[in-house]
Amino acid sequence: MPRLATKEKILAAALKLFNEKNTQAATTNHIAAALGMSPGNLHYHFKNREAIVFALYEQMLSKSVLAHAALPSTITQVHEHQIYLAKVYWAYRFFNRELLFLLSRDPELKTRYIKENMAHKQRIRIVFEQLSANGYLDTPTDDVYTQLADTVLLCNRFWHSHLETLGIEVDEANLAEGFGHIEGAMRPYLTAKALDELAAIKI
Amino acid sequence: MPRLATKEKILAAALKLFNEKNTQAATTNHIAAALGMSPGNLHYHFKNREAIVFALYEQMLSKSVLAHAALPSTITQVHEHQIYLAKVYWAYRFFNRELLFLLSRDPELKTRYIKENMAHKQRIRIVFEQLSANGYLDTPTDDVYTQLADTVLLCNRFWHSHLETLGIEVDEANLAEGFGHIEGAMRPYLTAKALDELAAIKI
Repeated sequence: MPRLATKEKILAAALKLFNEKNTQAATTNHIAAALGMSPGNLHYHFKNREAIVFALYEQMLSKSVLAHAALPSTITQVHEHQIYLAKVYWAYRFFNRELLFLLSRDPELKTRYIKENMAHKQRIRIVFEQLSANGYLDTPTDDVYTQLADTVLLCNRFWHSHLETLGIEVDEANLAEGFGHIEGAMRPYLTAKALDELAAIKI
Repeated sequence: MPRLATKEKILAAALKLFNEKNTQAATTNHIAAALGMSPGNLHYHFKNREAIVFALYEQMLSKSVLAHAALPSTITQVHEHQIYLAKVYWAYRFFNRELLFLLSRDPELKTRYIKENMAHKQRIRIVFEQLSANGYLDTPTDDVYTQLADTVLLCNRFWHSHLETLGIEVDEANLAEGFGHIEGAMRPYLTAKALDELAAIKI
């Protein structure tokens, strides 16, 4: 394995602790201790826990956000991207689990997050428009795009919380079911071409 | 106006402060001060802020949960109940806004909430089954019930957070749009009878 730079090591250790416990239970002292590092050395790289959360959020984005030219344009590509995204969301699960709390603690993160979430809504819309243009989706009215985009955002951001408020222990498999819910919402609008492609993938 | 018992007065003052600021910014001292009451008198009625949040949650439930026999069974009744529910959710908006945080602070509230949310999911399913039985909904598979029930829960609980993460200031009107999203999800399954009834309501 390649040697990680100190910053990367700190982020990896913090991510592990945040996922296992929560961001409040894992202090910068705990993170430093997990690495056998002095708190002073950690603070040289990150001024506080908020800075670590912010950096992990940026890391998650760098792994999940696609450039417009790379957005999926077939139902198979959508399906594959969802499987990939489910892994990223699981790897950074503390973030969606504590989403509103984290945003309330750091105005800078909140501003950044809102900007990115609005861009995400735009990207989702482009994907649905491409699916329509390529004969996968039959969208009778413009409202359907808005409806489906809201569904994707609700599931991407709050499926974790949804499971938790039903007393379901979240694991990688049931977290991925949020994407099944998105597919269920799209189903009435999928064309025969889309249904055939999906059936072929799932055999 | 009828004179409110002291307990009711405390709850009303707390609800106002929780909605205006948030539960952390509004301490029991602030709530007592808003009523011109001594902190000791407030603590005689509620041992801490968590007890006030718990009581407000129960109050919200008493205003929104329907007995099984009273659950809507026509599309008009569903629509009317949604308009009513939107007012209750707005009146108690601090609760959904801080949902996951509040549950993390009070294990007793979390247990109570999960039990009620599971019961809510059951009630939603009964409503959809009644709509199907009464010719309003055409549900080709059992999966559709699950799909729609999850949509209702996601919107009932997280529409507030969804708006916030898009940088939208939440008001009574856009909070009620969460019910429009639910109707949008039902739309592909509504029968001609249901669409006629809805069109008549909205004229």
